[in-house]
Amino acid sequence: MDLKSKIREIKDFPREGINYKDVGTLLLDGDAYRLAVQGLYRQCKHKEADLVLCPKARGLMIGAPLAYILGAGLASLHRPAGMPGNVFSWQYDQDFGEKTLEIDRDAIKPGTKVLVADELLATGGTAAAAVKLVEELGGEVVGTVFLIELTGLGGRVKLRDYDTISLVQYNY
Amino acid sequence: MDLKSKIREIKDFPREGINYKDVGTLLLDGDAYRLAVQGLYRQCKHKEADLVLCPKARGLMIGAPLAYILGAGLASLHRPAGMPGNVFSWQYDQDFGEKTLEIDRDAIKPGTKVLVADELLATGGTAAAAVKLVEELGGEVVGTVFLIELTGLGGRVKLRDYDTISLVQYNY
Repeated sequence: MDLKSKIREIKDFPREGINYKDVGTLLLDGDAYRLAVQGLYRQCKHKEADLVLCPKARGLMIGAPLAYILGAGLASLHRPAGMPGNVFSWQYDQDFGEKTLEIDRDAIKPGTKVLVADELLATGGTAAAAVKLVEELGGEVVGTVFLIELTGLGGRVKLRDYDTISLVQYNY
Repeated sequence: MDLKSKIREIKDFPREGINYKDVGTLLLDGDAYRLAVQGLYRQCKHKEADLVLCPKARGLMIGAPLAYILGAGLASLHRPAGMPGNVFSWQYDQDFGEKTLEIDRDAIKPGTKVLVADELLATGGTAAAAVKLVEELGGEVVGTVFLIELTGLGGRVKLRDYDTISLVQYNY
């Protein structure tokens, strides 16, 4: 199956000259979704990850089934929610100003092997922030994994110290 | 394994007298996560769902691996994102005012068998809104499925026309 044919392109969104890649149409197709998750699994099963970490909630669409098949735990970063207890806050620079993300400190202990998973690799800013957060807490990043990679935006360069896996690439 | 022992309770959060159930601690444990997903799968595999719909992004933690095992497609509702194309908008009453959610119209076609999945059933307001949205688009809700159910808040009554599955119950 050609997974690319399942990904809808939206021309000139969010601005002129950009063709948005809508992974949502692939996920709607049960067979394509299953193939995509299995394809990513084959490339990261040897990493023996203890935890799959999704920098964004939408990354759970890929990260959650991967964690399930790998037998790993699952966590996602989230915006500050005023939760009590042992929360680790992390500020990082995004394109337009600073952003704060939080995670339960118990999620990552020294030596925890973490696979960072998201639906899309573009500039790599969010994934790189997640990687730094893992290391700040003493965890070990065993790889980063994405369903789609836009190869011309420098994400793979930003993550060059880590094994970076993607299933569908666009020259972009 | 006693899944309840894996769910952290946070006393007096978000307000006094309420003990918040933090499913995040269960998900961090790979074995517990796997058992939880398999337990839910056993209860809904006979429903032959075409699509698993998560009313909230956090519901993907449960809905995404379920969709994967069931061989179904996956979709989540989201806040209006200004996406072009064939978007269906849906307004519903929440505790504090009206909320708007969106979904790709292509996600649910007439006759699509939909399983609504979320991490927690409390008052059932969000799940009931998702159910209405599915039916508005001509889909058929084959069931609703939750990891945790707070049994004293009326959610099951609100969803009484549908088969409602939960794995861990709190008398609440």
